[in-house]
Amino acid sequence: MPTISKDTQLCMSLAARPSNIGTRFHNYLYDELGLDFVYKAFTTTDLAAAVAGIRALGIRGCGVSMPFKEDVIALVDSLDPSAAVIGSVNTIVNDDGRLHAYNTDYLAIARLLASHEVPVDADVAVLGSGGMAKAVVAALRDTGFGEGVVVARNERTGRALAEQYGYRWQPDPGTARPRLLVNATPVGMAGGPAAEALPAPPEVVDAAETVFEVVAMPEDTPLVRRARERGRRVITGTEVIALQALEQFALYTGVRPTGEQARRASEYSRS
Amino acid sequence: MPTISKDTQLCMSLAARPSNIGTRFHNYLYDELGLDFVYKAFTTTDLAAAVAGIRALGIRGCGVSMPFKEDVIALVDSLDPSAAVIGSVNTIVNDDGRLHAYNTDYLAIARLLASHEVPVDADVAVLGSGGMAKAVVAALRDTGFGEGVVVARNERTGRALAEQYGYRWQPDPGTARPRLLVNATPVGMAGGPAAEALPAPPEVVDAAETVFEVVAMPEDTPLVRRARERGRRVITGTEVIALQALEQFALYTGVRPTGEQARRASEYSRS
Repeated sequence: MPTISKDTQLCMSLAARPSNIGTRFHNYLYDELGLDFVYKAFTTTDLAAAVAGIRALGIRGCGVSMPFKEDVIALVDSLDPSAAVIGSVNTIVNDDGRLHAYNTDYLAIARLLASHEVPVDADVAVLGSGGMAKAVVAALRDTGFGEGVVVARNERTGRALAEQYGYRWQPDPGTARPRLLVNATPVGMAGGPAAEALPAPPEVVDAAETVFEVVAMPEDTPLVRRARERGRRVITGTEVIALQALEQFALYTGVRPTGEQARRASEYSRS
Repeated sequence: MPTISKDTQLCMSLAARPSNIGTRFHNYLYDELGLDFVYKAFTTTDLAAAVAGIRALGIRGCGVSMPFKEDVIALVDSLDPSAAVIGSVNTIVNDDGRLHAYNTDYLAIARLLASHEVPVDADVAVLGSGGMAKAVVAALRDTGFGEGVVVARNERTGRALAEQYGYRWQPDPGTARPRLLVNATPVGMAGGPAAEALPAPPEVVDAAETVFEVVAMPEDTPLVRRARERGRRVITGTEVIALQALEQFALYTGVRPTGEQARRASEYSRS
């Protein structure tokens, strides 16, 4: 860790329940790349004052997590399209007192669909209708996946999300056998109520060519394990987390680590 | 330097022109004492938002320097007597969103007068009428130095300061030969317009039993050198800076370093 001086730039995060993952990821890479930055997670009960403080103190960047991703929109100076299209911010960059907001989940999902060469003519089913499902559907639509269905038991949020992007809504997969299956529900999440469950019937999982899991803890959810056993193309939630953090890192520092550096930082951040 | 985590506490400072001294002093001692803290100097052009940010982000402590020491009073929740008596704050402690303000210059000056065993019946001359002179006169009066004179060319500020504490004002030392002579002017400061000058005529310096120099850069000002050559009791500006920083450190962390640890930290901070 380089010595902190008055010129060291601070980056931070705001979450109701901060984790250590971002703090470890960013500080690991600052050290690895010899950058004069330091990163620390914060929480707050006064979002407006916290954001005003970021601006007034010249804090360079701020990751934004639950439950602040939507409320923070009114407090920044401009929205990148990545945040504007889904109405959700997870990254603030402070350029000399001007706060620009991004959503690097959206950016990461779009990049992963491209780098894994998922055919854009595949029909898609997105499971879930929460904040992450929103980022997924927007990224799918904007990278060329025109045909799709949002599968969500909540008709109100499911239908609203589907209609916003020209997708259809279904309460369950039914007879659909999509070539690209995306899980944006918490099913499979460690410690959750459905940690051992699949988010869709096994025959739906088995029929997919590509399985995109957004749950990142654990890396090998039941969905990921089953898809891998059957030799399917798999994109994991760990990749989403690592890539969205990498995009944040590049926005804050202007430096883009190599894939190998980012992989090691991500591994360290979760250890 | 221990690894920074989400639980690491941040302390900071606010100044128009931040130096590295505080950052180095505090981080050195955090490391030495194994405390999970990190310190960094900041500047701001929006003091109210910066202080609101300190509160909202749970930043544990903040050193306050020029030109914010008076304006910050309206932004905190309570004043310690050390700040209230002189109407000047150099330290904010954040207890769960309640901001308490102190003046550790005042505390340090009072402690140094006691630890150097300066006789309280000595008549005193304080050179200067600025912020530091205010801290000096208040600390002198409150530690029992009842008789004194404020020597300042500026009659308005000099007379106001003297009258507030029951001292007399003089535009120059005249025939006075005080036993305790305190320099609270910038005369002798490295890089200043009078770096090589004495703040009082040589015969006044030579007549004093104790010389208290508030200028800290360099440690051996012309006043300090002359008084040492003549074998006088000398208190230096370096001692004031180190002790006031130590008081801040104790307020922020609840831990009081040994004198030897503080001395090493102070030396490191200026290296």
